[in-house]
Amino acid sequence: MNDLNDQAFLEYAISAARQGASEGGVPIGGALVVEGKVLGVGFNKRVQLGSAIRHGETDCLENIGRLPAKVYQKATMYTTLSPCHMCTGAILLYGIPRVVLGENETFMGAEDLLRSEGVEVINLNSQECKDMMAKFIKEKPEVWNEDIGL
Amino acid sequence: MNDLNDQAFLEYAISAARQGASEGGVPIGGALVVEGKVLGVGFNKRVQLGSAIRHGETDCLENIGRLPAKVYQKATMYTTLSPCHMCTGAILLYGIPRVVLGENETFMGAEDLLRSEGVEVINLNSQECKDMMAKFIKEKPEVWNEDIGL
Repeated sequence: MNDLNDQAFLEYAISAARQGASEGGVPIGGALVVEGKVLGVGFNKRVQLGSAIRHGETDCLENIGRLPAKVYQKATMYTTLSPCHMCTGAILLYGIPRVVLGENETFMGAEDLLRSEGVEVINLNSQECKDMMAKFIKEKPEVWNEDIGL
Repeated sequence: MNDLNDQAFLEYAISAARQGASEGGVPIGGALVVEGKVLGVGFNKRVQLGSAIRHGETDCLENIGRLPAKVYQKATMYTTLSPCHMCTGAILLYGIPRVVLGENETFMGAEDLLRSEGVEVINLNSQECKDMMAKFIKEKPEVWNEDIGL
């Protein structure tokens, strides 16, 4: 998979994050891609559903539903923000071998853990992803802190 | 908190697991306890909801909903089975400082990671927890494998 494809697939996660933002939620989105096909997308639903576990990546996995391990093992998880410990754990649980993230300046997740377990992690350093988070954190800092356990 | 309390609170997680079993689901349950109060319980809903992220612990967190960090930071997560990477990550995300588990013979989760991050992990070595899992795995080995990404 080349960089151009990664940018294109990250756009699905960004679109999901925008949808979350439009609903007043934390603007973080995810998309799971297998062999060039987007299996599903998701976005953080802390605000919308009062959820403690629906982050961009986990909501994406939940929207897709049950999959055989062999599918996850060929997947790339696209996410607008560096994955927190929970989403990192979901990626490790299912053996997803590749993660492409929009940025890790707003929040540095458990990328070291992912890499130590053999997961490829690529940062596309997206200004749009940073800008969405900066806007949200300025408006609702307490929600963002809650989302990362602070 | 003494051992007697831990056994009593683990019973809430076991009861939740039994409920899951009665619905044909993976018999793993969780309960979150703060200062002697059970805030909520949950159980694995892979079968019942076609869920990829509702494990015993994460379903428990989701049923309880949004909580301030200061509540999680005084909590103990009771779970019938050693927490997988995803549930371990949820515990780390929210800074839950203590985990009491029913057993880790059926499945050894990411206990080393929990301990390396300063979480206290106690194994009550429950025969009932082991028996529930043994029965389920004998009946539906493919569902169990799917639940742990195999």
